[in-house]
Amino acid sequence: MAVTMHDVAQRAGVSIKTVSNVVNGYPYIRAETRQRVESAIDDLGYRVNMSARNLRTRRTGLITLAVPELSLPYFAELADAVISAADDAGWTVLIEQTSASRERETEVLSGRRRHLTDGLIFSPLALGPDDLGLFTVEYPLVILGERVFGAPADHVTMNNVAAAKAATLHLASLGRRRIALIGAHAGEQVGSAALRTTGYLEGLAEAGLPHDPALIGEAGLWHRSTGAEAMSRMLDDGVEVDAVFALNDALALGALHALHAHRIDVPREVALIGFDDVDDAKYSVPALSSVDPGRDQIARTAVDLMVERIGAAGDDQAPFRRVVPDSRIIGRESTGDVAPGERERVVAVQEGGTEVVASAWPPARDRQNVT
Amino acid sequence: MAVTMHDVAQRAGVSIKTVSNVVNGYPYIRAETRQRVESAIDDLGYRVNMSARNLRTRRTGLITLAVPELSLPYFAELADAVISAADDAGWTVLIEQTSASRERETEVLSGRRRHLTDGLIFSPLALGPDDLGLFTVEYPLVILGERVFGAPADHVTMNNVAAAKAATLHLASLGRRRIALIGAHAGEQVGSAALRTTGYLEGLAEAGLPHDPALIGEAGLWHRSTGAEAMSRMLDDGVEVDAVFALNDALALGALHALHAHRIDVPREVALIGFDDVDDAKYSVPALSSVDPGRDQIARTAVDLMVERIGAAGDDQAPFRRVVPDSRIIGRESTGDVAPGERERVVAVQEGGTEVVASAWPPARDRQNVT
Repeated sequence: MAVTMHDVAQRAGVSIKTVSNVVNGYPYIRAETRQRVESAIDDLGYRVNMSARNLRTRRTGLITLAVPELSLPYFAELADAVISAADDAGWTVLIEQTSASRERETEVLSGRRRHLTDGLIFSPLALGPDDLGLFTVEYPLVILGERVFGAPADHVTMNNVAAAKAATLHLASLGRRRIALIGAHAGEQVGSAALRTTGYLEGLAEAGLPHDPALIGEAGLWHRSTGAEAMSRMLDDGVEVDAVFALNDALALGALHALHAHRIDVPREVALIGFDDVDDAKYSVPALSSVDPGRDQIARTAVDLMVERIGAAGDDQAPFRRVVPDSRIIGRESTGDVAPGERERVVAVQEGGTEVVASAWPPARDRQNVT
Repeated sequence: MAVTMHDVAQRAGVSIKTVSNVVNGYPYIRAETRQRVESAIDDLGYRVNMSARNLRTRRTGLITLAVPELSLPYFAELADAVISAADDAGWTVLIEQTSASRERETEVLSGRRRHLTDGLIFSPLALGPDDLGLFTVEYPLVILGERVFGAPADHVTMNNVAAAKAATLHLASLGRRRIALIGAHAGEQVGSAALRTTGYLEGLAEAGLPHDPALIGEAGLWHRSTGAEAMSRMLDDGVEVDAVFALNDALALGALHALHAHRIDVPREVALIGFDDVDDAKYSVPALSSVDPGRDQIARTAVDLMVERIGAAGDDQAPFRRVVPDSRIIGRESTGDVAPGERERVVAVQEGGTEVVASAWPPARDRQNVT
């Protein structure tokens, strides 16, 4: 017959509530009481539920997801997808917002909250290649995004260059010749802006279009407001534009609003495509064409890698992998690919893949000794 | 001279790292070591930093915010506002998504994760008035929303009826006579849908307009997709409509897209107003009029109440309060209040207020004994 919590309580001479508190990791228990309960659990071989399993393996059943900004739809939807994938795998997600501050991102990596959960899925936005040392950690870590490559951790990223090139080529294939870019970060060599701008320039080159710096719209933060401002500046400066590639959908939706305020018809006068394929894109007026970077696959892969890494902790670790999901160009009204009320269509697909980026040796349990 | 962590380490005969681990609540420390460090801290009167203060008061410096769905812009922006308000007050927020499931909402209230943080700000969507018992808890709790009234906890809610009535009257003041409602929950007596529908009916009555059930559009979940579907159904059924009050902005943006797909001009043929005043509203095409329920004030008040409640824990508690921020009707293009490119204007203001809803006796520390 299975050992019950009641048996443990009886042997330890405490209440069932106290056993439950110990098993569930409640911290404010007298050390002596805790020891008595833990001994009783060991003696009886109590292990009916996940909580007891967690106690033995020192697991919490929790994963932290740290993202820059929940009010950006991409990150809100990513969080939703990670929560859903984790739920399917039996894990609960706690979310932290870093507001893209260096201080908060550093605290997330190395702060005293890391013991609250078993692992961290982290999308940095302030830290970069110069901070690689911070990413050498003792706990399971999965990195998302384009700020940090080569850290000793699993990494899920996007097909940024190829997808941005395909988006630009799609605009060119519609006969557009003055393709603006909204969301550039001047002088930045790292991150999504740099990679997607590279793709845009490659697309222009392949289409035989000249690169005109007047068509590059800067936007530090990628919000609707900054997209609207960058678009308005370009239009107010009298720059001739017949298409826009915005580096994310928030920028694109802001640009769409600015075009509307300037009484410019989309897609007839200006074709527009974004990046991220957030839920808003389907419902804007007109519906926004976008790059689907494979968000659900990113979320699911991140959780799979995390769960595998947690499960292997203390054993030999698999090598670290970098995974790139397939991405797709989704044509909607804003590029004239469909009429109002019609469904979207997939214009192009960029294949992803998986590569091993570093050996995971030494195993996680020893890693603290070699840093 | 102030006692340092080094002094504590020396007296306890452990490393500074071990003292730091104990002070920061790291759970995996041998009981005997922990006792030695805690004795040294007590003997020396060590209390230089917040961490030590937290140890003494058993505080984590963390607050949990539990919301139904981060992919709904209202909750993503609310989370952002709560994080920002908490940050100003020196607190860090961990976010949980309940996906509006009864099971998860119950787990958030009573589950084993509650000891990870010092208090819970909770916006329930599945639990309701029949679950009041679950809201009688031992820790600081601030309830948001309209599902639960009368629980022994502080509560920040909205001016739902008055604001919905004002929105409806605004549409009537534009000369509209066939005002549809999108987002109704048939038969539901509790929650935002019921309250806002009541305000709509009061507005119709005050404007002398008849109530036509054909103008009530059902939408269980308040997403863009369901708003678009409800609007399309009504239009496909041939119902004559010259204005729409959508019970949140996601529904309104979905309805706006459906009107566009049906080639109906907003605001000329149909005027449209939403509820929540999310960031998207300013940038939709045309820009969406909405009800601003005072989101930032909701967030700030919730954090203020929480911090006050945590600070008073163990002492005599203040009575529980219900706080309603001022709300405002924001006129933009979709009701013809401004032209494209023009700024919004405030059409009406509904005053909020604060009332005491229940004595907080017995104090929090004893509450577990009386449930």
